Amino acid sequence: MPAKPRVTIALIAEEAGVSAPTVSKVINGRPEVAAETRQRIERLLHKHGYQRRTGQGDAPVGLVDLVFTEIESPWAMELVRGVETAAREVDAGVVVSVLHSHAGPGRDWVERIAARRTDGAILVGSRISADQHGQLAARSIPFVVVDPEGEPPPGVASVGATNWNGGLAATRHLLELGHRRIGMIGGPAGMLCSRARVDGYRAALETAGIAVDPALIRYGDFLVGSGRDHGHALLSLDEPPTAIFAGSDMQAFGVFEAARQRGLRVPGDLSVVGFDDLPLARSAWPPLTTVRQPLQEMAELATRMVLGLDRGGHEPRRVELATDLLVRDSTAPPTG
Amino acid sequence: MPAKPRVTIALIAEEAGVSAPTVSKVINGRPEVAAETRQRIERLLHKHGYQRRTGQGDAPVGLVDLVFTEIESPWAMELVRGVETAAREVDAGVVVSVLHSHAGPGRDWVERIAARRTDGAILVGSRISADQHGQLAARSIPFVVVDPEGEPPPGVASVGATNWNGGLAATRHLLELGHRRIGMIGGPAGMLCSRARVDGYRAALETAGIAVDPALIRYGDFLVGSGRDHGHALLSLDEPPTAIFAGSDMQAFGVFEAARQRGLRVPGDLSVVGFDDLPLARSAWPPLTTVRQPLQEMAELATRMVLGLDRGGHEPRRVELATDLLVRDSTAPPTG
Repeated sequence: MPAKPRVTIALIAEEAGVSAPTVSKVINGRPEVAAETRQRIERLLHKHGYQRRTGQGDAPVGLVDLVFTEIESPWAMELVRGVETAAREVDAGVVVSVLHSHAGPGRDWVERIAARRTDGAILVGSRISADQHGQLAARSIPFVVVDPEGEPPPGVASVGATNWNGGLAATRHLLELGHRRIGMIGGPAGMLCSRARVDGYRAALETAGIAVDPALIRYGDFLVGSGRDHGHALLSLDEPPTAIFAGSDMQAFGVFEAARQRGLRVPGDLSVVGFDDLPLARSAWPPLTTVRQPLQEMAELATRMVLGLDRGGHEPRRVELATDLLVRDSTAPPTG
Repeated sequence: MPAKPRVTIALIAEEAGVSAPTVSKVINGRPEVAAETRQRIERLLHKHGYQRRTGQGDAPVGLVDLVFTEIESPWAMELVRGVETAAREVDAGVVVSVLHSHAGPGRDWVERIAARRTDGAILVGSRISADQHGQLAARSIPFVVVDPEGEPPPGVASVGATNWNGGLAATRHLLELGHRRIGMIGGPAGMLCSRARVDGYRAALETAGIAVDPALIRYGDFLVGSGRDHGHALLSLDEPPTAIFAGSDMQAFGVFEAARQRGLRVPGDLSVVGFDDLPLARSAWPPLTTVRQPLQEMAELATRMVLGLDRGGHEPRRVELATDLLVRDSTAPPTG
């Protein structure tokens, strides 16, 4: 196969009908290019798969970007701790930013990062479109997605936990205790990690020969309030569940709250399983049965991947770290 | 008063017996200077109060450093959120680092920051010695301390909450309920914010005419485990307290745990007050009576101060934001 000619700035400039410095400005996130021209150049960079040359001479910047959609939950802190640990080993600082949107990093963000430079970005819970992938690739910003929203485009590396297995294990635990009517509160329906947990729940029910009742499945946002609200909704059903599997520990704490507000005891009247194993899960009351996902390890791995320190090198890939069911005191056989 | 001559690099170099570029290297955190020479230069920079010239021409770097001693508690997340909010307004990224020590930022850290450059640093829970102050000042790194450990040197700006008033309000609330034997679990004895809470507790008891019993005061580390351990210790006393004021919400959750392990009901057998009002305090069981400190607002203010956006300008000062007692369900009159 003949070698593909290298895509140069000159080639992009010629095809766009602009000067080479104008193309450079767009790549480097400088502001002085008209929006229309910028878009034309952006499209050509993407079409040709342009990649900024990063030779041996490029010194590391000493910064890793950790980009959240939201940081409402202590869950985010576990990821900060993991990234910080891995970055410290190579003396890199960790830049934490919050997009306040699930739409993924916008062009503004990409250009700001390109102007400031980074050794790599870890995108948490983001949607990554082919366009966004192209914008990051054109500027040679290495990135890894942790728990992507939606299916990332081919070639995008991502890190997660074995969410499906975790959902399966949590639900099987409840089935083994004798529960037959099990409610499920998932995270956002668009997030792969959340869907996988719900699918694990379905698979456990189906392989046990129990029909899945759609009324028992609800989707929230992984926070306490959504656990409380959907917990109330499930417990208000004519035939309420005797157990609830929540897609996050925070949601499980919300279910605890809903149960208390209705005068129900956990686990006497209602069993609850969470997902995450945040540090607070064990000191909750009752101590929470939950599916542990190794958040710090996931964040460390993503950091090593993005910095090219992982033995696997820069190969785009999907890595899932194992989950573990931790049985504590919030689950028991159903009564009556 | 005659103007003090400006301290120049040339002057420092002459006195140290080295070249001006060597002094520059030390200031800018370059590695190629021998340790002994570096120390000599560092001492002279400090002695003469050298400050890097930062003219109008210096463009902002677009980075604010947020430096923790530890990030074990969800408390840290509240500060990250506040700093991120304020930094985003000026399009600055937030670099989060963790010193894993209460000894304040070491020379390594200062040099790395000087080499990479920053628009300012927010140091959380750090001790700041006169030496460290000098190292930061010599490199013109603006900084503000949030909740300093120990008394910061003169001229250091800091932000905190009205911890003394908070401790007073928490203890008065317990006294008004009728408690007379009130335990206190403080944070690290060296942290001013913790000492102030304990002193507020003492003041409330003394003004109520109740002698302070030293056996009822213990110091921990603000985390769940220390609340649990010191909770057990207090509840094991021959004359145990009927109420405990914990220096943090996490410690209060630990006291909840200790009470449960001993078969005590909260608030029936033991009243508990926390400090912080983390998002989890209201969904804890029972919902936690606590002293709210406005962590996000404190972090936002520190950020605006360090970036010179605050109307107060660069004046070094100590700002304390108001605390609020939030009475929920973990406190009640003593029984028996």
